[in-house]
Amino acid sequence: MTRRRLIQMVGTGTGTAAAYATMQAMGFMATPAAYAGTPDLPIGSGQGRAVTVLGAGIAGMVAAYELAKAGYEVTVLEATDLAGGRNRTYRGGDTIVEDDSRQLVDFDRDPSLYFNAGPARLPYHHQGILGYCREFGVALQPIVNENRGAFFQDDAAFDGGRVLNRQVVNDSRGIIAEMLSKAVGTGVLDQELSGLDKERFLDFVSSFGALDDGTYTGTSRGGYVDAPGSGLRPPGATLPVLDLGELLASDFWGYKMHFGEGFTQAATMMEPVGGMDMIAQAFAERVGPMITYNAEVSEIRREGDGARVTYRTPDGSARTLTSDHIVVTIPFSVLRDIDNDFSAPIRSSIEACGYVAACKAAFQAERRFWEEDDKIYGGISWSANDITQIWYPTAGFGQQKGVVVGAYIWSNSIGERFGDMPLADRLELVLEQGSKIHPAYRDAVTGGSSIAWHKVPFAKGGWASWDDDARAAAYPAVVAGDGPFHFAGEHMSYLTGWQEGSVLSAHDCVNAIAEHTRLADL
Amino acid sequence: MTRRRLIQMVGTGTGTAAAYATMQAMGFMATPAAYAGTPDLPIGSGQGRAVTVLGAGIAGMVAAYELAKAGYEVTVLEATDLAGGRNRTYRGGDTIVEDDSRQLVDFDRDPSLYFNAGPARLPYHHQGILGYCREFGVALQPIVNENRGAFFQDDAAFDGGRVLNRQVVNDSRGIIAEMLSKAVGTGVLDQELSGLDKERFLDFVSSFGALDDGTYTGTSRGGYVDAPGSGLRPPGATLPVLDLGELLASDFWGYKMHFGEGFTQAATMMEPVGGMDMIAQAFAERVGPMITYNAEVSEIRREGDGARVTYRTPDGSARTLTSDHIVVTIPFSVLRDIDNDFSAPIRSSIEACGYVAACKAAFQAERRFWEEDDKIYGGISWSANDITQIWYPTAGFGQQKGVVVGAYIWSNSIGERFGDMPLADRLELVLEQGSKIHPAYRDAVTGGSSIAWHKVPFAKGGWASWDDDARAAAYPAVVAGDGPFHFAGEHMSYLTGWQEGSVLSAHDCVNAIAEHTRLADL
Repeated sequence: MTRRRLIQMVGTGTGTAAAYATMQAMGFMATPAAYAGTPDLPIGSGQGRAVTVLGAGIAGMVAAYELAKAGYEVTVLEATDLAGGRNRTYRGGDTIVEDDSRQLVDFDRDPSLYFNAGPARLPYHHQGILGYCREFGVALQPIVNENRGAFFQDDAAFDGGRVLNRQVVNDSRGIIAEMLSKAVGTGVLDQELSGLDKERFLDFVSSFGALDDGTYTGTSRGGYVDAPGSGLRPPGATLPVLDLGELLASDFWGYKMHFGEGFTQAATMMEPVGGMDMIAQAFAERVGPMITYNAEVSEIRREGDGARVTYRTPDGSARTLTSDHIVVTIPFSVLRDIDNDFSAPIRSSIEACGYVAACKAAFQAERRFWEEDDKIYGGISWSANDITQIWYPTAGFGQQKGVVVGAYIWSNSIGERFGDMPLADRLELVLEQGSKIHPAYRDAVTGGSSIAWHKVPFAKGGWASWDDDARAAAYPAVVAGDGPFHFAGEHMSYLTGWQEGSVLSAHDCVNAIAEHTRLADL
Repeated sequence: MTRRRLIQMVGTGTGTAAAYATMQAMGFMATPAAYAGTPDLPIGSGQGRAVTVLGAGIAGMVAAYELAKAGYEVTVLEATDLAGGRNRTYRGGDTIVEDDSRQLVDFDRDPSLYFNAGPARLPYHHQGILGYCREFGVALQPIVNENRGAFFQDDAAFDGGRVLNRQVVNDSRGIIAEMLSKAVGTGVLDQELSGLDKERFLDFVSSFGALDDGTYTGTSRGGYVDAPGSGLRPPGATLPVLDLGELLASDFWGYKMHFGEGFTQAATMMEPVGGMDMIAQAFAERVGPMITYNAEVSEIRREGDGARVTYRTPDGSARTLTSDHIVVTIPFSVLRDIDNDFSAPIRSSIEACGYVAACKAAFQAERRFWEEDDKIYGGISWSANDITQIWYPTAGFGQQKGVVVGAYIWSNSIGERFGDMPLADRLELVLEQGSKIHPAYRDAVTGGSSIAWHKVPFAKGGWASWDDDARAAAYPAVVAGDGPFHFAGEHMSYLTGWQEGSVLSAHDCVNAIAEHTRLADL
């Protein structure tokens, strides 16, 4: 097998694990090191040693928190005036800053009226970040990620109309089960089923697809024309089965209808009560005194066994800090433009890492038309148009007003196009495309805000995206670090775009620094 | 088609809607009346007329609320000292009363430590009950109903070990898709697929099952042996595919693994923040002054065009109330033992209605082992043993203590057996069977409480269960009512066991009373 074929396999997501294993065996990748877990450093073990952390995002604050607990002298330099990095929740009165614009967020002030512009959900198995929520008492609630009452919409199928999620999902199951049931009946699968109870297998398939005597004629799972009620209102007809040709013509099934089964998307998904930045605030409460805000790093240099960082303050003056270790959590999209004397392989890694032009737009609606008109409580409707997703708020069910995310884009081509539009044109596009799913959209919505992460200073992208060549050739060097320089952040993981990647990579840095200290103290 | 065959069709759930339609056409059932919606009666239209409502459950309080708004003089007689009926949430210090026992609930007092003994979830399309939540400002949160991180367990399969929900669900999809893909390849389904793009259909099937070149070898949807991490920890091997023979031997697929796709179970499911009885309390705040508590109805008689109700007070004395209308929401399991002069068809209806011996048991755990050890946040694990389900709390994620529902039983044979056991033996059974899913169970759990609804005074059952003969022959009479007597409650609906049935049937009664008033006033 060629290296290229291997990388292709990884890229298409087929046989990924096998491909990685082969790549390791062929020497294209370093062998994985076991994750050492949340650091549990001896109290006082870091005394007398200084660490500078660049960036007060989640990775930087995790590193600062764990190192400070062990007695290291920690300084965090943060370019903005806020802790959290891309963990950012906007509320009424906040300002969204892009390279060429400033937007005042026009929501009312209310605990349920917020917009998680960056990460917005926590999978149940992301135990690093969830562990801090538990430790810090950050209240969590389930987030509705998959909603059978929401919609799919594609201009190319079903006359461009919206189609109910539960119909798409359950009719697909039914059609697949009916076809398989018929095939089993012909005997063509007898070899596959040898040694198994064929009748029981047919029962299994029938139950899976809600078949009626081997055929699929619709199911209550998909919904009713006439739902059962009180009095003399028995269950009426179920919704007619969707046309398979239309279903195949749609983009619903490429990944969207299976989205909620994904490793990082399946229930239980959670969010902090009140907004994702409750996590950032909980960290900031603990590491805040170590943070210097509005400190824009301009130069990173070795000095002796340690390093020196130069940063600018708001008054334009430059200051320097020297320390034994530097934990660099600045996104590589930003770091590559900061003067440094990293080793050549590190500089190559930093250059090689791509970033996603992720965008979101959010509106306050004066009434929750999605709840009142369409019985949608949280979750996502999927559009084949640029807006890609409509996210409904999990917070504040039944209240009058709500904030809906009218677009969530993570395709670079769409995101760059969207980001290039004047702010008003972005909102008009979101209204126009969203109206195909919700006719009430335009009437109920006021103002709105959008964010194009590749245009946000000190972020310059939504999250890292290593292509397979870069992952194989460039990434291992920066994982290994470079003398006093240790790198953390979501980009330093295979969990790019997730806060868990920031947490685990920060743990790696902390453990590496602690090990360096231990060896130096021997 | 014979009447019996029709009823069988309804009973097996196949072709239910068609069977009902045929039954109507054949005169076996009354034609459905359209639901008239939430009553919107003219203010003052009920003045000068008295209505007695029997029972301060959800149906009774809905009727009282709507009638009182229109000016009717409403009295609600409630046999217990609490409003809500089977909408009951237990907290530390509460007492669970059964015919032959009293249990003091031993949970700590904390907003997250409660146990919804009756209804525990609200489907998104139950707009009657949700409408009152919206109107009354009852805060709602999503409830985790389907959790891919929870377990199935059946002594008869997989050596009795627990099996991860996401493996069961996604391996089933993968196995079914692979079989179908192979069958399509043989051409045996060409006729079924005529007129369709066969390659695109294969892509659809492949995407559905996460196939790799037509075969299923496991998927990240089911989970990893080595999950991706930070640093040099790429996605490792996915979990091995479950053995199809073991899967077929298990009881996972009869309905349990499709449970979350059900019409009344699919996302979004909700619960009131703080417990289901927040709804009962919100009603009681509004209709409380009309309720006479501890009033046990002993006799219901016609008197003129109206009716007379006799009830006993705690001091043993009997009192009577006469009124123009009576809204009877007492469960038929209880009503059949109250002296009355209902018409013969009504009495037959009341006799014909069955009740479910539903049971639950709940414990306080001193630590949330399901979260800490098993990464389970809310949702349900399924057992093939008597306990049937373990429900994990959606409230209070990440807190130290939690209340887990260790058994939820709705099979009559199991429920009766469970209800007959001494209280301590019930809890021992729940611990023993639950330990097969959670080895930490016994260590973390203290005390506990259980409820067998068929032994609860003034309930005598979890919810109504009309068999098909009773639904066809007996139910229509009681829907029609009987002079001054109008019947409401979950049993007066095709939504038995759901509060929505109580709400909608109460609306029916209110609308019928209003129509009677309108005609009398002409």
